[in-house]
Amino acid sequence: MFSLPKTATIIEVGPRDGLQNEAKTVKTEDKLAFIHALQTAGLSEMELTSFVSPKWVPQMADARDIVAGTKKFGRQLVLTPNERGITSALEAGVDSIAIFVGVSNSFNEKNINKSTAQAMENLRPLIEKAKQDGIFVRACISTAFYCPFEGAVNPQDTIDLCRQFVDWGVDELSVADTIGMANPQESHELFSRLKKQFPDILIAAHFHDTRRMALANAYAALLAGIDRFDASAGGLGGCPFAPGATGNAATEDLVHMFHRMGVDTGVDLDKLFEAISLIEPHVSNSLQTGMYTLYKNRK
Amino acid sequence: MFSLPKTATIIEVGPRDGLQNEAKTVKTEDKLAFIHALQTAGLSEMELTSFVSPKWVPQMADARDIVAGTKKFGRQLVLTPNERGITSALEAGVDSIAIFVGVSNSFNEKNINKSTAQAMENLRPLIEKAKQDGIFVRACISTAFYCPFEGAVNPQDTIDLCRQFVDWGVDELSVADTIGMANPQESHELFSRLKKQFPDILIAAHFHDTRRMALANAYAALLAGIDRFDASAGGLGGCPFAPGATGNAATEDLVHMFHRMGVDTGVDLDKLFEAISLIEPHVSNSLQTGMYTLYKNRK
Repeated sequence: MFSLPKTATIIEVGPRDGLQNEAKTVKTEDKLAFIHALQTAGLSEMELTSFVSPKWVPQMADARDIVAGTKKFGRQLVLTPNERGITSALEAGVDSIAIFVGVSNSFNEKNINKSTAQAMENLRPLIEKAKQDGIFVRACISTAFYCPFEGAVNPQDTIDLCRQFVDWGVDELSVADTIGMANPQESHELFSRLKKQFPDILIAAHFHDTRRMALANAYAALLAGIDRFDASAGGLGGCPFAPGATGNAATEDLVHMFHRMGVDTGVDLDKLFEAISLIEPHVSNSLQTGMYTLYKNRK
Repeated sequence: MFSLPKTATIIEVGPRDGLQNEAKTVKTEDKLAFIHALQTAGLSEMELTSFVSPKWVPQMADARDIVAGTKKFGRQLVLTPNERGITSALEAGVDSIAIFVGVSNSFNEKNINKSTAQAMENLRPLIEKAKQDGIFVRACISTAFYCPFEGAVNPQDTIDLCRQFVDWGVDELSVADTIGMANPQESHELFSRLKKQFPDILIAAHFHDTRRMALANAYAALLAGIDRFDASAGGLGGCPFAPGATGNAATEDLVHMFHRMGVDTGVDLDKLFEAISLIEPHVSNSLQTGMYTLYKNRK
């Protein structure tokens, strides 16, 4: 029998990563009800929203109101792409930010019109300033395994990028299989290496279930000693495809598997289903994760 | 890096396990087209149909025509619940049969109105006779992990049942997580013990994706040295729930993950998608597995 950590932490990314590409406009009050229900379910670390230009991400135009309307509970993160975002977030009273970059050049060029090196150069002073101000900084690393434009990413490139972030003082690395292509062997290998290289930093694994490998990858990451996992309630988001093609690893599926293996997350599954039921009517696609589908059929 | 087998065999169960509970009546010619397309994709071991009373399983009423209409290719199995079934199957020219039983009493009582011990007593002479006739015998073991009526099954009970089958001369054990509740730690533990106890017999792992753990369980079984996996093209079958709630582990999702990890299956994924496209119009639910959904969106 493989040994597993006794507990694992879920970083709930549904309200931010899950809703940012949603086609329907979700009202602020509906987002807040969702966030509060997620908190009630025990999700004490959460990406609430994103301080980005509403021109680029209209779903996140209410970032300020989301922060103002959310009661303090655990670690509440907001995504901030640049200095303006960080300034707005801090003005809103935020004390934990997430910054992001891809490992591969093409991904960054398509997304933010910068090479990886340029993107990192821009992030460095922002991170150093935030750390001076006592802000918790999470670095979200996209295309850590595969890039949609370049294919396989060299694990050493991902590790080198993480090293820079660690040297600049970030508190957490969130290492993402952005397009859901990593397999469990790759997950085990990269996360084993990251744990070894960075024993003193928080490391979260971020998987997508596009090819149904999210839980297998999470299991492999657990075996590598990882005990933090990004997940999205209802599998919201990351879904450029048809209804039914899930995107982010679903919080309920991960929590269920972890609990069945004796890995406690502190999340109450029934309350989590209630939270998902609150947001489902406001999004375009029917939510069809494993556990939530069972819940709906039980009712 | 964990070491994995170089190759794995998929036992395709879609035409039998996948279609047996299908609400729509699927025409014999449509089943045959599906079977031939699956063969063309390289699936050389397959459960073709079931020689059961059409009163109980109307979808399998054409078992004789299915066998007659299928060209010989690899190992072609038919399910046979009893002596009459075996006789009919042999008359139809079959040389490989699958018999089945659950580990838990309640499951057998609900299904076949017999205790596990009574069911085994009935199977013993059938197996011994089939082996005398040179027939390949596969024993399908349901509720090997969990029973829908009794809950957790003692792994030792599953092992003891397997031991009886092995003593009676079966060629293969197909060990099933019938209701999709096993977790990867349980999969790894049970299959490690089975491999150790029965090193000289074929052992197949049969998972359901109800709670999205099928691929994680398959990965754990691979780590335990298992290299045979039941799977159903399109995730057909085992689906007592709503559209989108997949049942059997999907052949395409397993094959894809295995290939990505360097475990060859001999299956051509593109041809497999074509096979699934042939059957999809004839079944009730839209097929929404990971890989098949990507295929449909690519078109």
